[in-house]
Order: sequence, then structure tokens, then C-alpha cells
Amino acid sequence: TSPSVATIAAIGAHEGQTVTLRGWLYALRESGKLLFPIFRDGTGTIQGIVPKAAVSAETFETIRQLTQESSVIVTGKVRADKRAPGGYELDVEAVEVLQRVPEDDPFPITRKEHGVDFLMEHRHLWIRTPRQSAILRIRAEIIKAARDYLDDNGFILTDPPILTPAACEGTSTLFPVDYFGDEAYLTQSGQLYIESTALALGKVYSFGPTFRAEKSKTRRHLTEFWMVEPEMAYAGLDDLMALAEQFLSFIVERVLTRRALDIAVLGRDVAKLEAIRAPFPRLSYDDAVAMLHEAYEKGLAPELIQSKFEYGNDFGSPDETYLSSQFDRPLMVHRYPAAVKAFYMEPDPENSKYALCVDVLAPEGYGEVIGGSQRVASYDLLAKRIEEHHLPLDAFQWYLDLRRYGSVPHSGFGMGIERVVAWICGLEHVRETIPFARTLNRIYP
Amino acid sequence: TSPSVATIAAIGAHEGQTVTLRGWLYALRESGKLLFPIFRDGTGTIQGIVPKAAVSAETFETIRQLTQESSVIVTGKVRADKRAPGGYELDVEAVEVLQRVPEDDPFPITRKEHGVDFLMEHRHLWIRTPRQSAILRIRAEIIKAARDYLDDNGFILTDPPILTPAACEGTSTLFPVDYFGDEAYLTQSGQLYIESTALALGKVYSFGPTFRAEKSKTRRHLTEFWMVEPEMAYAGLDDLMALAEQFLSFIVERVLTRRALDIAVLGRDVAKLEAIRAPFPRLSYDDAVAMLHEAYEKGLAPELIQSKFEYGNDFGSPDETYLSSQFDRPLMVHRYPAAVKAFYMEPDPENSKYALCVDVLAPEGYGEVIGGSQRVASYDLLAKRIEEHHLPLDAFQWYLDLRRYGSVPHSGFGMGIERVVAWICGLEHVRETIPFARTLNRIYP
Ligand SMILES: [Mg+2]
Ligand SMILES: [Mg+2]
Repeated sequence: TSPSVATIAAIGAHEGQTVTLRGWLYALRESGKLLFPIFRDGTGTIQGIVPKAAVSAETFETIRQLTQESSVIVTGKVRADKRAPGGYELDVEAVEVLQRVPEDDPFPITRKEHGVDFLMEHRHLWIRTPRQSAILRIRAEIIKAARDYLDDNGFILTDPPILTPAACEGTSTLFPVDYFGDEAYLTQSGQLYIESTALALGKVYSFGPTFRAEKSKTRRHLTEFWMVEPEMAYAGLDDLMALAEQFLSFIVERVLTRRALDIAVLGRDVAKLEAIRAPFPRLSYDDAVAMLHEAYEKGLAPELIQSKFEYGNDFGSPDETYLSSQFDRPLMVHRYPAAVKAFYMEPDPENSKYALCVDVLAPEGYGEVIGGSQRVASYDLLAKRIEEHHLPLDAFQWYLDLRRYGSVPHSGFGMGIERVVAWICGLEHVRETIPFARTLNRIYP
Repeated sequence: TSPSVATIAAIGAHEGQTVTLRGWLYALRESGKLLFPIFRDGTGTIQGIVPKAAVSAETFETIRQLTQESSVIVTGKVRADKRAPGGYELDVEAVEVLQRVPEDDPFPITRKEHGVDFLMEHRHLWIRTPRQSAILRIRAEIIKAARDYLDDNGFILTDPPILTPAACEGTSTLFPVDYFGDEAYLTQSGQLYIESTALALGKVYSFGPTFRAEKSKTRRHLTEFWMVEPEMAYAGLDDLMALAEQFLSFIVERVLTRRALDIAVLGRDVAKLEAIRAPFPRLSYDDAVAMLHEAYEKGLAPELIQSKFEYGNDFGSPDETYLSSQFDRPLMVHRYPAAVKAFYMEPDPENSKYALCVDVLAPEGYGEVIGGSQRVASYDLLAKRIEEHHLPLDAFQWYLDLRRYGSVPHSGFGMGIERVVAWICGLEHVRETIPFARTLNRIYP
């Protein structure tokens, strides 16, 4: 009988047995009469050991001649080794080469430094390297955790349309699409739609791509990014904040439990992630401003706070970084002035100057990962707000219907997946958080 | 202490207790000194009973005056009743009305017949009715099942881009998007991208919206629909067919287990779904053609087969319906002539006239739900195919790279979610399978 096919991630189950791995050569080191090939199979990497005396001359020479990313089916015996990153090594017995990458057209991504443009141009190959593979596996785990949390807590997935007739908030950052002669836009958020499904199904969420035609080139911006948006009927701001902290804590814990090896590949500080447990600190906008004023007056963070924050503005990125740096877990800033927030946010019944909203700022300067609010429940107020914001009342008739027929208090938030991936993985730039990033200057491959 | 808040779906846990439901009035029947309000809360519906003698005159009158879709918080005692669809009824004690829908602007969707255009125009409200809510919950369950199956079997989710630079197969059915001055298109399939992530991560899948600017108005076509596409490195056509039958069986079983009440709401024939168990029948294209020829010659299905099927063509919808009607579970038709299939399909090594591909036809005439193939592994053959199909070689350089650097046999398929929802729910038209259908003539709401 032929040896059973194993994956590197689950190779521990085969300790002492001879198995077959199907993958690629990642790297090869030669030391006298020993070869140390490192193989990858998509689930992880493992080092093989090939003493010249242990295999046929032909096998030894075949392995010695292997080039990076050559596809190989490897047979060998699994041996535990505490020094190995995954805990195991492979005593190689035989190798079948499917395609040997030739020296005169080698795999373009070597272990030396490459420029970002070169790497992004070869993204379809760059993702094979251990660090990028680890990020993509963690991304998948974050998405799985987010979905599991919502599915297991009574939320029904309802996909809103990607092609939409009207703009939620202005049209300057929308991608227009010619829809059989009509003008349509790519969605920026499913919120308005899932408000309607929440009133049908109680607790719902959407999870899909959203688009922003922003001409900015920052490390936090993609033109195409994925958002998860839960929305709850019969729920207010407090319910929403409770959901946000439970949701984020669950996601971080899942990644730590299931993707420890990948987190280690990234060299991420695990203690910083282990601190992410509900409850999260809560700060009203007014208290946050007071904190910024104190920082300015006492010169506590001159590299971030160079002028006195003007009350009533939205926070800038350095303000958010300063605020979040005061805490070891995500910070929930609530009750911003209604004037800087979206038209659909419910005013605080205790002071209508404020909106019943919350932004969740990730620690370590990773910025806003969640933004949400209670939604206006009153037909009259919502109609007034739409007019005040010079939005087309006609396009919002269906949205107003939700306040005509059985309106209820309801609340929801949006969480940007790529920002969460960047934070959990500890990445400088969001372009590595998604398989094929779309930015102002890049739509290839 | 106030009564605990319950959902209708989980009300059985509160039998004999007084609970609070938060929802809407779906319908109201009056019979002498008894009121029978039916409430819905998004998780299901429940009938209340209100004897005039059991409540205050004011409460009785408030309930008697309730209109459809008025939002209400209801308190009452849970009583088991075998005749009730969900198994329970509510002895109403008190009602708080949040918004009473007025008689002069009633909820537009009543229990009488409405035209399709009217219903689609009010889709944001139509989804509140029991049948549409049931379909949406089943849709969510199907998606959850598909993801769980893949996640639990070692597949890594890798989202391909929605905005793509090149056309996979011709441009006539693509939606073009102006991408900062460059021409981009909305994706029709993530396949090419996940071939690259499969070679990085082994087993992967994508799950997202895809677009087809088709000017056809059939009951099977949407312009925006969701596709799940698994792709496996080191896998051939047999592995793919095994995956397809396990995957579909798992999904159907999950729906039957977890959404039995919703299936009952739809009046779906459960026995037909219970028959969906792997293994599925397999038929080569040649054998399928022979079956069609026999049907024609013997006049076995004159309403479907009116002329002799021409060998070498792709099957039409009546052909698929006839073939699938011969079996009680999905039919896997494999090895079509390469000439009618896509350029990226691996030829059968036993006869290169055939492609190593499979279409899975749902029973009961629901048509193709899965299409997949082994992919061409050879660089030279793929380059030749791209040229033969008059596709721009330049745009496919990155795709050809997958055959330059460690090419391996790999296979994948695409499954259209809306077709599967239509089949499992037993729906005539795909427009009810998605919260907000996009069709040739509709992009609102
Ligand atoms: Mg903000
Ligand atoms: Mg077909």
C-alpha cells in the first residue's frame, strides 16, 4: 500500500509514519553531504532532511537540483523535532518532480528585498511566500469567526445589492456603472438595505465587498474592501456597544486559538492580542475631546497632538492614535455631535446635539475598525434630515417606508475587514490584507 | 421582575412562562369575544389568543384596532398547541404599540394577490411576509452550510477582486466600470484568481457576487448573483466530482435539519430533498446524448424533446430537464466535447476531443447548479488555447505564470447560490432567491 497523503498542518497525526506531501519547494540549503529542502503545501512549511547515504544517488541529485517553486510530490518519514517551527521534520525518502522551474526563468520572488510595486505586480506569486500565506489564512479565520459569531447568535445573513440606484452619502466617491442605459453605482454600504431586512427578520447582517472611488493613497485605503454589517431591530446604542465588544473579542480569541502558528510567522506580539477582552473602555466624544485638550496643554504626545483639537470636528488619524494609545483594548467613543455624523443617526434623547453613535478605535494606532449607530425611527425627523442634507427625497421613499410601516428602534454597525486584518496581523499597510488589493493606481493582476 | 424577552423560533424553551415578544402584527382575526392576532418577530410567526374576559377593555380594544405591520411589544403566556404550525400559541396579557399603521396609508402588501412588478417595487416590505422570510432564512442556511463544509474540510477562503482588468470569456456580457480613467469590469467569476491562491494555499474557495450583463429575461437569470467556487491543487476531475456530491448532499441535509419549519411554510416536497444523498449518478456527455436520442426516437417526452439533439452542441434547458428527470438526485454529466467548453479546461488524456469537465444538473428541471473542470496544467497548451480563442495573451500573462512556476494538476467548480436556493425552495423564478434581485429591468429598490 502506498503511504497516505498528509498535509503539513496536520502532519503531527502521522508521527513515525511514512507519508506523501504534495507541494512545492520553498527553499533549499546544502551542507556537505546533507540537503535541507523546505517544502510548502499551502497549509504550512516543513523542513526535509536528506543525508546522501540515505537515498539513491539519483534521488539525492534530483533534490539537489530543485529550484524554488518547483512542484514536487515528496515521500518521507515524519519525525518530531522541538526546534522546528511546526514541531516536525521530514526524513525524505523519495521525490517526484512535476515541474522543475528552470534556472533561466526562475521564480520571481526570491528571499531578497523586492520593491512594493514589483511585489504587487506579482501578487499572484507573492502570496505563495510564508508571510503572505499566513496573512491570508488569518484573514480567512477572521471572516469565519465573524460569520460564526453572528450565525450562532441569531443573525440572518441578507446580502444587499452591489449595484445600487442611489447614493447613500454623496456621489463624489462612487464608482458609476452603466446599467443597460441607467446610471447605477457600486455600493459603499449595505446599511439602508439591511435596515429593511432587519425589520423583516429581526437580527440580520450583510457581508460583502464595498467600494470607494477615493483618490487618496494612504496605507489605510483600498478602493474595494469587505464589510460586515450587523443590524438589529428593537436594539439601541447600548445593545450595539455590547455586540461590538463581544464580536471583536470573539474574533481575536479565535485567531489566537486556531492560527497561532501563522501569528508566529508574522512575529506579532501575542500579549497585545490576548488583552482584547470585553468589556472595552467607553468614552463620550466630550470626554475624548477633554483628553485631547489635556494632551495638548501638557505636551503629552507632541508627535501626535500639535494643535488644540477644535471641539465639534471629527477626529483625525493622529487624534485617534493618541486616544487609543491610552488603552490596552479597543476604545469605544460614543455620542459624537450629530453635525459631523450621517443623516440617519438617531439623536440622543437626553441632548439632541449628540448622535447615538459609536466608533470603535483599534489599539496601537490602527484606527477606526467599527462605526455604527442607532437609526432614526421617526418618519418626520428622517424626512427632515434627508432634506437638510440635500439628498434626493424620491430615491429614499423606500427607506422612509421603514418608518411608515411599523417603525421600531434599530441599530447597526459596519466593520471593515481589511482594517481588522491589518490590526490583528500587525501590518503597516492594508494592501497585504486582501488577496488582490485594488488601489488608486492598481487593478492588476 | 419583568418577563424575559423571547424569540418566536425559540419560544418552546419558555412553555408555561410569561414572555415578551418584540415584533409586528402580521394578521388579525376576530371571532365573537375572541381575538386571534398573529405576530411575527423575524424568527417566525405565532398566533395569540385574546378572550375579551381575560384582559382589560382597553387592551382588548387596542389589539382589536391593530393594523397589519403595526410594531408591538407583546406580553403573554406560552402554551403548547399541537395544531399550531410552530407548536405553540400565546395567551396575550398586554400589548405596547410602538407604531400603529394608519388605515389611510396601510401596509401595501396584503394577503390578496399582487402583481410581480408591484411586489418587486416593494421588495423592502414584501420580504416581511412569511413565505419570503422563509426563503431568505433558507438562503442564509444554504450559504452557511456551503461555507462550513469548505471551512471544515481544509479550504481557505480567498476573496478574488470584483473589479477586474480583463475579461475571462468575451466582453459582451460584462459591466464596464470607469476606474480612474482605466476601463475595468465587474467580475463574472473568481476562477482565474483562485487558481493562483490554490497554488499558494492548496485548497481554497471564493464566495462573492458575480455579474452578467445579459439582456435576457428568463426565470433563471439575474444580472447580479452569488457564486461559491472551490479550487484544489493536486486534484483531478474525479476528486472534483466527489467534492460536488458531498458538498451538495451536506447543504441539503443542513437545510432539512435546521430549516424544517421554513421548508414547511413553502409547502416544499420534503421527500424529494431527502433523496439527495451522495453518490450522484454520473453520465458521460456521449451517454447523455444517447439518452436524448432514445427519448426523441421513442417519443418519450414530446413536450421537451421535439427534435434530434445534434451531437457536439451544449445542452439546452429542455435537454437538461429531460436528463435530470430520469434521476432522483443531481446528475453529473462529464466529459463534454472540448469545443463547446472554456479554453482553460484540461483535455481528457484518453481522448483529447473531450474536456475533463462536469456539469451538475439539479433534479426537477432546476438546471445546472454546478459547472467545473480540471484546468489546463501545461504552459504551451494554455498559451495555444488563449490564442485560438482570440483572447489577449498580454492580459493572461499572470495566469500563464501559474504554469511557468510549479504547475500542478488542479480543479475547481462554481456553484450559483440563487439556482440552489430556487431548487431547494422549489421556486419558479430566481428573483425570490435573493433579498434584492437585479434583473434587466430592475435596479430598485
Ligand atoms: Mg471616525
Ligand atoms: Mg451547461
